[in-house]
Amino acid sequence: MSELTELSYALDTFYFLICGILVMWMAAGFSMLEAGLVRSKNTAEILTKNIALFAIACTMYLLLGYYLMYSSPEGGFLPNLGFLIGSENTADAVLAGGDDAPYYSMRSDFFFQVVFVATAMSIVSGAVAERMKLWAFLAFAVVMTGVIYPVSGYWTWGGGWLSAAGFSDFAGSGIVHMAGAAAALAGVLVLGPRKGKYGKDGAIYAIPGANMPLATLGTFILWMGWFGFNGGSELKVAGVDSANNVAQVMVNTNAAAAGGVIVALILAKLWFRKADLTMALNGALAGLVAITAEPLAPSALGATLIGAVGGAIVVAAIVTLDKLKIDDPVGAISVHGVVGIWGVLVVPVTNADATFGAQILGIVGIFAWVFIASLIVWLILKAVMGIRVSEEEEYEGVDLAECGLEAYPEFSVAKK
Amino acid sequence: MSELTELSYALDTFYFLICGILVMWMAAGFSMLEAGLVRSKNTAEILTKNIALFAIACTMYLLLGYYLMYSSPEGGFLPNLGFLIGSENTADAVLAGGDDAPYYSMRSDFFFQVVFVATAMSIVSGAVAERMKLWAFLAFAVVMTGVIYPVSGYWTWGGGWLSAAGFSDFAGSGIVHMAGAAAALAGVLVLGPRKGKYGKDGAIYAIPGANMPLATLGTFILWMGWFGFNGGSELKVAGVDSANNVAQVMVNTNAAAAGGVIVALILAKLWFRKADLTMALNGALAGLVAITAEPLAPSALGATLIGAVGGAIVVAAIVTLDKLKIDDPVGAISVHGVVGIWGVLVVPVTNADATFGAQILGIVGIFAWVFIASLIVWLILKAVMGIRVSEEEEYEGVDLAECGLEAYPEFSVAKK
Amino acid sequence: MSELTELSYALDTFYFLICGILVMWMAAGFSMLEAGLVRSKNTAEILTKNIALFAIACTMYLLLGYYLMYSSPEGGFLPNLGFLIGSENTADAVLAGGDDAPYYSMRSDFFFQVVFVATAMSIVSGAVAERMKLWAFLAFAVVMTGVIYPVSGYWTWGGGWLSAAGFSDFAGSGIVHMAGAAAALAGVLVLGPRKGKYGKDGAIYAIPGANMPLATLGTFILWMGWFGFNGGSELKVAGVDSANNVAQVMVNTNAAAAGGVIVALILAKLWFRKADLTMALNGALAGLVAITAEPLAPSALGATLIGAVGGAIVVAAIVTLDKLKIDDPVGAISVHGVVGIWGVLVVPVTNADATFGAQILGIVGIFAWVFIASLIVWLILKAVMGIRVSEEEEYEGVDLAECGLEAYPEFSVAKK
Repeated sequence: MSELTELSYALDTFYFLICGILVMWMAAGFSMLEAGLVRSKNTAEILTKNIALFAIACTMYLLLGYYLMYSSPEGGFLPNLGFLIGSENTADAVLAGGDDAPYYSMRSDFFFQVVFVATAMSIVSGAVAERMKLWAFLAFAVVMTGVIYPVSGYWTWGGGWLSAAGFSDFAGSGIVHMAGAAAALAGVLVLGPRKGKYGKDGAIYAIPGANMPLATLGTFILWMGWFGFNGGSELKVAGVDSANNVAQVMVNTNAAAAGGVIVALILAKLWFRKADLTMALNGALAGLVAITAEPLAPSALGATLIGAVGGAIVVAAIVTLDKLKIDDPVGAISVHGVVGIWGVLVVPVTNADATFGAQILGIVGIFAWVFIASLIVWLILKAVMGIRVSEEEEYEGVDLAECGLEAYPEFSVAKK
Repeated sequence: MSELTELSYALDTFYFLICGILVMWMAAGFSMLEAGLVRSKNTAEILTKNIALFAIACTMYLLLGYYLMYSSPEGGFLPNLGFLIGSENTADAVLAGGDDAPYYSMRSDFFFQVVFVATAMSIVSGAVAERMKLWAFLAFAVVMTGVIYPVSGYWTWGGGWLSAAGFSDFAGSGIVHMAGAAAALAGVLVLGPRKGKYGKDGAIYAIPGANMPLATLGTFILWMGWFGFNGGSELKVAGVDSANNVAQVMVNTNAAAAGGVIVALILAKLWFRKADLTMALNGALAGLVAITAEPLAPSALGATLIGAVGGAIVVAAIVTLDKLKIDDPVGAISVHGVVGIWGVLVVPVTNADATFGAQILGIVGIFAWVFIASLIVWLILKAVMGIRVSEEEEYEGVDLAECGLEAYPEFSVAKK
Repeated sequence: MSELTELSYALDTFYFLICGILVMWMAAGFSMLEAGLVRSKNTAEILTKNIALFAIACTMYLLLGYYLMYSSPEGGFLPNLGFLIGSENTADAVLAGGDDAPYYSMRSDFFFQVVFVATAMSIVSGAVAERMKLWAFLAFAVVMTGVIYPVSGYWTWGGGWLSAAGFSDFAGSGIVHMAGAAAALAGVLVLGPRKGKYGKDGAIYAIPGANMPLATLGTFILWMGWFGFNGGSELKVAGVDSANNVAQVMVNTNAAAAGGVIVALILAKLWFRKADLTMALNGALAGLVAITAEPLAPSALGATLIGAVGGAIVVAAIVTLDKLKIDDPVGAISVHGVVGIWGVLVVPVTNADATFGAQILGIVGIFAWVFIASLIVWLILKAVMGIRVSEEEEYEGVDLAECGLEAYPEFSVAKK
């Protein structure tokens, strides 16, 4: 390898690692966002879930998921299950590819992929917050990050049948975000809403989050981390075209988030008469999810518009899901699921290589797989260990029941 | 283009993007700092302002500001207004320069510039906190980020008359920080102080911020982000001299912040008999603002001293502004304005290419433009929609009035 | 120098600077972790200590420490004291090496080193929290960062006798983490436990931290920053082998943290019947400390195991230290000291170049030096200015006594 190629390899590897660090940082973003949007009595538990799910995701993907996702037959549907019988299933063998990789270290590829899995799983924790048993949730995380996500991941990024069918999802509006939301929706349906959320006669009661600065911090962290999420998905920076593309992706990612904030805030003001901060935050995240399927092809103004529509959709989706009594304390299903679908569907508008048919196929395929597989796992967990805390635990808060401590032991709580 | 040049282009673009991400992160820093330094009843609103102003800045600079700042005649005073009549005004056309740029992607340049605008605007929100109407503030943000900042930005970094006059301001002690403070000062003068801040007979009442960990986190975020702010302003890293310069800038930026903390803390201890945490935080920020006009030429010890003097100035400035009944809840005018002037003035001491005459011309020129233009906009907004919330809203807190929610709904508030 | 070599120099410098920024960010992590784990009445003071110690570390290392650590005779024991008598002692002369450095800017080396010193010192503040005088602590910081750490740093990374003896500590499980813990242990022994921590008949009372989201945020920040801490310690990325190594280090660092979380959480559940969030956080940090001495040689699965054992050790160590009445409010001595020893000892298992003999020599040598030197300094400070606040100040909280303000002035405190 020439010295020049070596240097190019080093730059691409370093770029990949930095982007991976930014995506890892999103785990902190989800933690803060969710901790800010639940009530104080359930805060320590949601934090425990978030750090534990990240650890589980990293370990399960190392043990199993990365192998399933990237060692399976091209164009296929069933992943390679060779690990069940053989020595092949050593994650280290897969990721030790080293200089076999075309232009960056396979270890940096693994690093980037592993933090993506954690992102998908982080989406689930918010939706089922405030009433799910901690250990049932962690058991689900084992299956989701070890098998469910890697299988649909294989279908697309691993070169499986959806990839062959022309499904186009640059950084994962569908593969990561809608997939996480599909697993979350299955969980919420099995779990039911929080006590006191929905009254008789269709009444809907707001349950405000305990800590808005945390929720805002989480949103900013996610915004920052998304530059790695989308920017790293170009996979290469060393070269004029690649560098221009990475830069365009970052400009567009930022523009879409900005568009989402503005529209969601104005819509909240018009609709609810108040500049609802949580809608502004969800607007930012909606803009980010919307642009994730195709952050490269649009112009910066186009990206702003795609994000802006995402910001409108998320406000409507949150209101609609509440009417359907689908209780999602942090709005994760709306942000990642409904807007994720928008992101995937709008790709062909700017990217001539994508088709609406393939996009719809991808949405249906990924949603069906993740939703049904998750539903089965949730139902099994419900039967085996139960997934919902007792009414008393829910009333007292899951922090004491599950974690044996309070998140804010010194601050008196005005209302439960 | 040779492969080597391609690689150099890629490295410079990547460096620019990473620095831009760090500057974007400063938006979170300002949010946390300001949320920590206001009272809890005004916290959700200041968070809303911060995320919305960032979104507005990104969108307005894309639509208008970048064009004004970087497509105007060399050495001139009036920006190119061609966009008013022609097709030229497509931000995408400007930023799509791609490989026309000498050594990095124009898209990465836009990304770096756009987050700078947001920084300037973030300075304003803290100074007018706890009493300004949300939508009046956002309307001001539209004009500030779309026109006011870009015009003086054009005078300096865009190659206008101040640049031609030899004004030297590496990363923007004056262009960004003092400019933000000038707009804030105009706003504060039109707005007046918070109720209860100043009593009869010149009494000054302290209004403590609600959340010191948040304020500290915000300061650390700003400190971190400043490595991108100053480090990226070298514009280039690919080469021995450039790399040495970027490294020197980062060493000096860190040293100046450290010097600012130490002196501000000791001064607070001597003056107020207490190691006032907020003064330590302001000392760090003062050190950072002070070194921003020339972070390259000083030695590391020299940078420590420049920051240390900044730390002393900021303590004195905060006390003085309070005596003048200029009510700035977070000390933004002192940190960014008064210390910004210090930073610009001290440049010729270490940089032989700068002159005191040109530095003073720059201070006067930028301050006059931003202050007067802002004053006019604030006065128009006051006449058209009003800029101050009602006395009752101020007493109850702007969170409920403007955002319809509380930042900490469960934590009982001991005193309003 | 050829253009290619220039580019390689630039990439390595940039990589070093980015890693340094990540390590600087760890200062925010320690601040948030410690602020979350103390009671609210002592929060502003611990924040003041953290930002001030960072500033002191940066300044003292610039004035003295870097010179001692990297200008001393090879294989030696006593550092070069030439600065006492001569002009040689200008930090700027040392760090201005510029292109004398083999493959990166000496300024970036200084930047990376200086933030390491702050890390070592940050470990101390947590252990002595809630009862030590602010200014005595800062005085200790001056000596620790100016002399104590640099001397043992010279023995190892500066090419002194421990380096010559074959002691192997990649990124500093011993040199940084155990050293910090040794200084903390000496302080805790001189200082004694907090009032009310230990009752008669060996009773141990839990004193819960006031803010779990902050503690969790701090842990995530440290996790993120550790990618710079370990990843930067490869010192070079420009080349296929270097890039592969840096990637492997990051994969392993992440895997070890994940292993630590999982085992600590399960062990806490089995031992205390609760999924104690603070143990999960300490498990993450323990995994990170454990892998820091050798993050390159293990496979990813091996790293997970090394971290997992660290996670088990930290839970046992925290319980044990409490039984020994060594009162460490944040568990810093367990995390950084006990697990740091584990990290150093396990190196020879995966790295054939290391020997158990040299590792034990390193542990004993560094611990003895730092512990004894620190003990002497603490005792001198105790005699000269006192190191413990009065009983009344401890009861009322050190925030008001030392800083003259409260961290959360508006949130009523349910219990002191």
